[in-house]
Amino acid sequence: MKTRTTLLLNWYANPYHAPVLAAKALGFYDDEDIKLAILEPTDPSDVTEIVGLGNVDIGLKAMVHCYAAKNRGYPIKSIGTLLDEPSTGLIYLKKSGIQSFDDIRGKRLGYVGEFGKIMIDDLAKCAGITDYETVRVGMNIVDAIRRDVVDAGIGIGCFQQVELEHEMGEAGMLRIDQLAGLGCCCFCSIMFIAHEKVLQEQPEMLQRFLSATQRGAALVADNPDRAFEVIQEYYPRLDSELYKKVFNRSLPFFSRNLLNVERDWDKVGNYSVRLGIADKGFSICDYFTNEFVPSTPFSEVKPLGCSV
Amino acid sequence: MKTRTTLLLNWYANPYHAPVLAAKALGFYDDEDIKLAILEPTDPSDVTEIVGLGNVDIGLKAMVHCYAAKNRGYPIKSIGTLLDEPSTGLIYLKKSGIQSFDDIRGKRLGYVGEFGKIMIDDLAKCAGITDYETVRVGMNIVDAIRRDVVDAGIGIGCFQQVELEHEMGEAGMLRIDQLAGLGCCCFCSIMFIAHEKVLQEQPEMLQRFLSATQRGAALVADNPDRAFEVIQEYYPRLDSELYKKVFNRSLPFFSRNLLNVERDWDKVGNYSVRLGIADKGFSICDYFTNEFVPSTPFSEVKPLGCSV
Repeated sequence: MKTRTTLLLNWYANPYHAPVLAAKALGFYDDEDIKLAILEPTDPSDVTEIVGLGNVDIGLKAMVHCYAAKNRGYPIKSIGTLLDEPSTGLIYLKKSGIQSFDDIRGKRLGYVGEFGKIMIDDLAKCAGITDYETVRVGMNIVDAIRRDVVDAGIGIGCFQQVELEHEMGEAGMLRIDQLAGLGCCCFCSIMFIAHEKVLQEQPEMLQRFLSATQRGAALVADNPDRAFEVIQEYYPRLDSELYKKVFNRSLPFFSRNLLNVERDWDKVGNYSVRLGIADKGFSICDYFTNEFVPSTPFSEVKPLGCSV
Repeated sequence: MKTRTTLLLNWYANPYHAPVLAAKALGFYDDEDIKLAILEPTDPSDVTEIVGLGNVDIGLKAMVHCYAAKNRGYPIKSIGTLLDEPSTGLIYLKKSGIQSFDDIRGKRLGYVGEFGKIMIDDLAKCAGITDYETVRVGMNIVDAIRRDVVDAGIGIGCFQQVELEHEMGEAGMLRIDQLAGLGCCCFCSIMFIAHEKVLQEQPEMLQRFLSATQRGAALVADNPDRAFEVIQEYYPRLDSELYKKVFNRSLPFFSRNLLNVERDWDKVGNYSVRLGIADKGFSICDYFTNEFVPSTPFSEVKPLGCSV
């Protein structure tokens, strides 16, 4: 009997989920005796709550949201990394005239959920800018720019910026990490999160889930063309020129070992304190654990037997 | 007056050096007041010795070679990572009939320098195989397969395997880390190395060198098409379909923060002990330092001033 489990993505299924999608399509989860249901949110802001209430076993969410979720009392922890520091910021069409953060004066800025607004407002406060507008657009940043509802919006370089450029012309990005002096885009690293109860009650399932995912990540790194082929056969809606571009642009950012990076949790914790969504005395150990990440990843080859 | 310094590559200049080549082409080293000469070896086995004798300031070399070099008394240290765990192994044409390590019986196996032979012999010993031949082929693995001098040879997935496939048909790889049960290809991570004297006498130069290189790595990750364009303009010999493929296949492996990974040094140390090229009581602190890696990478944007 296979163990049933559920993964709730942070966004609709797209090529930046490639390690998971390839592992699913090729039966890597089945090989680990896991029957995995992959779910998509229609509103990304629902994810931490649904995981935090224990309704799904595993979710995907940006690192900064993990701090916010804990702050609201949801007992979740990160068990691994999917995307490592994907560049994130305000994306815009170059013809909009935006060149620096100062150019947001008088502009309408789109954000996904409430924490995007908190970040924009924090940056604006730092820059002493008050004459701008924020608009909650959920998953439809590019569409909102096309419909002239906003002039720019928060997005990821390897996805929304690529999409904007593909559909509407040359695009640029003001990276939030650079504007905020953070030193890395780790606040937007995409983490596998789970309820504390799942960590306690199903540790083996989590290990097997991450093992299969590592195998997917290895395929994506070593044989990206094959990985994309597999994904687009399994998810025909991803068979497009745009998604091929998104896939290629995501390659630098996939974590291969899936480990949480301690230093990043520290940085993002401090940033969360500054944003008012974490308490000063935070301890990073409350937010992540690497105990479920296999230290010797799945091997396609049987080792010859003289292990180190 | 700019500081002159030299970087000796581990191989001829190719797209897996993209962060360095892009930084050079775009003047990022000049921006840091460094006049950087980039040198290529004609025999990769010369690199640790030349760096170890203090003839050039900085070199590039695989992690396992750092252990070997120290073992021979060369006072070098790794100051950062260029390529993070690129998949490495015995590459072959599928039509050669090789499918598993057992198929090396009766075959001729090419290797670059002496440590490749040590690795092959170690694996063969584990598998109880004695009827195979090793041939030192230096930088000419693919050529040696083409000229039927060897049946397979040690190479990197994102370079020699791509080259073999591009020139001669479907190729496969038996990954050394999987055969040896290592758990990661970190033994082949490509490190920036320097003589201890350079570490002591020119710490600021090393910091500035790594800062410019981080900026190159950020460009490669965020805007790979632009980065490759820049590189092929500066090094016209890299303007080919093959090198575009090598570039794309290298994208998952470029370190963006350039940090040495402690866990990898530990693993590779143990592997080096097993290979007889390091002593059991090794201390990883003798082999690397992260003190020159800028913790807040160069930003293309002036932070707004409310840093964390």
